[in-house]
Amino acid sequence: MPGIGEKSATRLAFHLLRGPKQQSRDLAQALLDVTEKIRLCSVCMNMTETDPCPTCTDSRRQADVICVVASPSDQVAIDRGGHFRGRFHVLHGLLSPLEGIGPDDLRIAELVRRLAAEPLVTEVILATSPSVEGESTAMYMARLLKPLGVKVSRIATGLPVGGELEYSDQATIARAMANRAVM
Amino acid sequence: MPGIGEKSATRLAFHLLRGPKQQSRDLAQALLDVTEKIRLCSVCMNMTETDPCPTCTDSRRQADVICVVASPSDQVAIDRGGHFRGRFHVLHGLLSPLEGIGPDDLRIAELVRRLAAEPLVTEVILATSPSVEGESTAMYMARLLKPLGVKVSRIATGLPVGGELEYSDQATIARAMANRAVM
Repeated sequence: MPGIGEKSATRLAFHLLRGPKQQSRDLAQALLDVTEKIRLCSVCMNMTETDPCPTCTDSRRQADVICVVASPSDQVAIDRGGHFRGRFHVLHGLLSPLEGIGPDDLRIAELVRRLAAEPLVTEVILATSPSVEGESTAMYMARLLKPLGVKVSRIATGLPVGGELEYSDQATIARAMANRAVM
Repeated sequence: MPGIGEKSATRLAFHLLRGPKQQSRDLAQALLDVTEKIRLCSVCMNMTETDPCPTCTDSRRQADVICVVASPSDQVAIDRGGHFRGRFHVLHGLLSPLEGIGPDDLRIAELVRRLAAEPLVTEVILATSPSVEGESTAMYMARLLKPLGVKVSRIATGLPVGGELEYSDQATIARAMANRAVM
């Protein structure tokens, strides 16, 4: 498992063996519960215990905008701020030809079906990270979604809030200059 | 001097005393030269040996756009990429009421005079950092410059190139979402 090598695994195993038997039983049950109870929301593809998930059934959220993210943790990052009040769609990855990840490996077809089923949606925000994979995934999806008659937008790239020009990389400065906005 | 405390200063002083006398004389001469030769360009206020500076006299640069920066090092940061081919104006600081730095302490009046003298300029890009001081300086200057009939723009704030949503701060994510662009 990530961050746990042979040494850590051995230490954890002996810790469980030394501890009360109930602790191991509880952990085993929790693992079974996770496997049984957590599935993908049939609407937004995020992980959930109830289907549809609490985000999709939250009537206080706008029904006209869907924010597309690569992972559940990216959804958490955007939701934490509380500024965005629309809904989400989780791709579960990014396009990466080098790693053999194509469009069929992501939850893209589900989004296309969802857009057909939800005519209220007027905008899709592509909120994948401005990395190579994130940019190419956004480009691919824009080409796919625009013909469906929905407005497709991309989160802004530029200097981070509180960032300093002097310590920013050239690519970011070039984007910040190119994407400048009239005041 | 920044980064040089009492210990470093002592070490440097003894290094000079141990070394050849000519080394100290050369350093002293270089310091005198800097003080004598380097002044501010009368056009863009950047530091220069010749007035106007090489950037202002470079005829390959666009004469219609001026990029306003806080410091000479910020100008270097933007120029390094080679994407921006306009001219610059150096403010030599940012507004900071807490530190008692007001508009009269910056080279703002010089920019206003320059805009009157250079009718070819159609756009002023405010490229101060997205820090508190940088933002308020940009806001102040936009209010001042827009009535002069010039287009005033601001560099983009958002996720840096190669940045990850998951590890970005909430303010940056909120800006990246708010400043999203239609694809």
